Amino acid sequence: MSTARWDGRTIWEEDGTIRVLDQRRLPHEVVSVELDSVAAAAQAIRTMQVRGAPLIGATAAWGLALAARDDPSDAALERARTLLLDTRPTAVNLQWAVERGLGRILPLDEDRRAHTAQLEARTICREDVETNRRLGDHALGLIRARAQEVAATPDSPLQVLTHCNAGRLATVGWGTATAGIYRAAEEGIPLHVWVDETRPRRQGGRLTAWELGQAGVEHTVVPDSAAAHLMATRRVHLVLVGTDRTTAGGDVANKIGTYGVALAAQDNDVPFYVAAPGSSIDFQTRSGGEVPIEERSGDEVIWVEGLSDAGSLETVRLLPPDSPAANWAFDVTPARLITGIITERGVAEPSTESLARLYPDAAGRG
Amino acid sequence: MSTARWDGRTIWEEDGTIRVLDQRRLPHEVVSVELDSVAAAAQAIRTMQVRGAPLIGATAAWGLALAARDDPSDAALERARTLLLDTRPTAVNLQWAVERGLGRILPLDEDRRAHTAQLEARTICREDVETNRRLGDHALGLIRARAQEVAATPDSPLQVLTHCNAGRLATVGWGTATAGIYRAAEEGIPLHVWVDETRPRRQGGRLTAWELGQAGVEHTVVPDSAAAHLMATRRVHLVLVGTDRTTAGGDVANKIGTYGVALAAQDNDVPFYVAAPGSSIDFQTRSGGEVPIEERSGDEVIWVEGLSDAGSLETVRLLPPDSPAANWAFDVTPARLITGIITERGVAEPSTESLARLYPDAAGRG
Repeated sequence: MSTARWDGRTIWEEDGTIRVLDQRRLPHEVVSVELDSVAAAAQAIRTMQVRGAPLIGATAAWGLALAARDDPSDAALERARTLLLDTRPTAVNLQWAVERGLGRILPLDEDRRAHTAQLEARTICREDVETNRRLGDHALGLIRARAQEVAATPDSPLQVLTHCNAGRLATVGWGTATAGIYRAAEEGIPLHVWVDETRPRRQGGRLTAWELGQAGVEHTVVPDSAAAHLMATRRVHLVLVGTDRTTAGGDVANKIGTYGVALAAQDNDVPFYVAAPGSSIDFQTRSGGEVPIEERSGDEVIWVEGLSDAGSLETVRLLPPDSPAANWAFDVTPARLITGIITERGVAEPSTESLARLYPDAAGRG
Repeated sequence: MSTARWDGRTIWEEDGTIRVLDQRRLPHEVVSVELDSVAAAAQAIRTMQVRGAPLIGATAAWGLALAARDDPSDAALERARTLLLDTRPTAVNLQWAVERGLGRILPLDEDRRAHTAQLEARTICREDVETNRRLGDHALGLIRARAQEVAATPDSPLQVLTHCNAGRLATVGWGTATAGIYRAAEEGIPLHVWVDETRPRRQGGRLTAWELGQAGVEHTVVPDSAAAHLMATRRVHLVLVGTDRTTAGGDVANKIGTYGVALAAQDNDVPFYVAAPGSSIDFQTRSGGEVPIEERSGDEVIWVEGLSDAGSLETVRLLPPDSPAANWAFDVTPARLITGIITERGVAEPSTESLARLYPDAAGRG
């Protein structure tokens, strides 16, 4: 097992190659892999070596750059588009990054495409960090106000609940839902994070818990089904989650289970906020019912990987041999259950009007 | 790994000893253990070799019989009462069985106590089977009506969702939530059961899936967080769950996550029924806030046991080494979210009046 400490990077250039942190191995091993082709980038997205809507977008941008490097012809780039878009259907950042990159390079002569695609991938990565930093400003304002409202102290900190991983690991930097949390921690606002385990792939238990631990943020992992009980027993002051695709009307597709967390928040008057960088908002989709929901293999429910006492990674079967499992990866939280949508441009109400006010250009094209 | 087929028993007498199926080993091994003392019975309840409110009651009744066999003095029986009641706080059947047994034997001379306690344990076990069979009659009526309402066919069966295990394995026979399901399956009503995995101890994935499979009932396991999505996408016609303690007012303490399932059912107009034998109704507790909620070790969230490819049972760590976990075992579903409470005496509304009408004697003492 690698005991390397994490340097905070999820995707980066190194000696002329592109590398990503292999998130399937976390939290037990901190290892990276090289992406040496668009096929490798697509494979990394499909197998969830990288995951999280913004990071999927950044990886796709690099995938396109690798495609243009290897063959900048229109036909090859069209194949690269199909390859990348077919990896995962729900996160809109994937389409956003691929179409943005293609929009830049297809009008160019072939000999200029590789370089421009590379520059564009760098820009998308840089912008992601900056977007999330600004999103974090707005989230910090909310967190600070809520901490004052509940008179948070080190002995009785602000209690934040999150689901899945909308953290540094889901982005190029800061995270979305975690951006405000890290900013608040830096400011010394006393807070504690309840981390939903997030079955079946346990992005909460494996990834969010790990990155919060790396950053020294107090947290406790709970089974997904405990979130409602935590809220009913007044143990949560604020819910912060990410999104894979937010529609023009403010419905939010996010990791399976988010909708249930929102129902519990509503039933207990807990503010429920979604952190959504502009790249996650799909103005061409009006409502949640139109969002394609990925169905993954039941094997992700049937089997689980963990670290044995002897220190080796082992995969074990959880279910009886003849019992099938179903595995929808996302659900839709209707706008009516959402308190606000935190973007890099400010906090929107979950409505067509409010989102369009923040993104008049994108909404106009929707 | 034992490949023995299950004979359907959870607790039984064999050659003058008491044996229980060791449910911690399911679904991977079908093995039983002997309970040779009240201490062994208490240990079996505490470590969840047996679990499920009615089966906990039956095991406690046999524990008391073993205590009376070994030492029928008042002092010893008082120690046995404390030992048994201290095992698990939430299921009221435990208290019900222990107090019922003690109420029978304490007035007797010491030399008659062991035999009477044994008879009483047998009676409690026999009554449990009979109670659940009758509860199943009433549940069958509901299931039949709902199947007609949704025009269930083999290609489009009635879709039932359940959480945790309120099955044969939670009782001496039939199960509570499953009693109607087994009756309906016998009648040929086309149905399919969505089985919530039920983290952290996976009573759904390990136990309900296994016993439905043994009975040939079609089912699919889903992560707990998928229940709300299933309902939002019209894939569930009926929710049936058990209870560890139902209060006089109709609030229902049950496995952690039940409250969230009920919220999702309400939001999607899915009927939500609780199967509650009279022994699970606590007329001395008015509302859910008064029910003690057991908090178990976070280790149950941190570690998981499964079957390796090589066929051995392995325990693996799921979380980062420095991340703590919390583990409340139950939550409370408020009466307002419940469509009906199915008992052996009929279906009650979740209200003080309706429950008292079915149990006038018990309610009078409440």
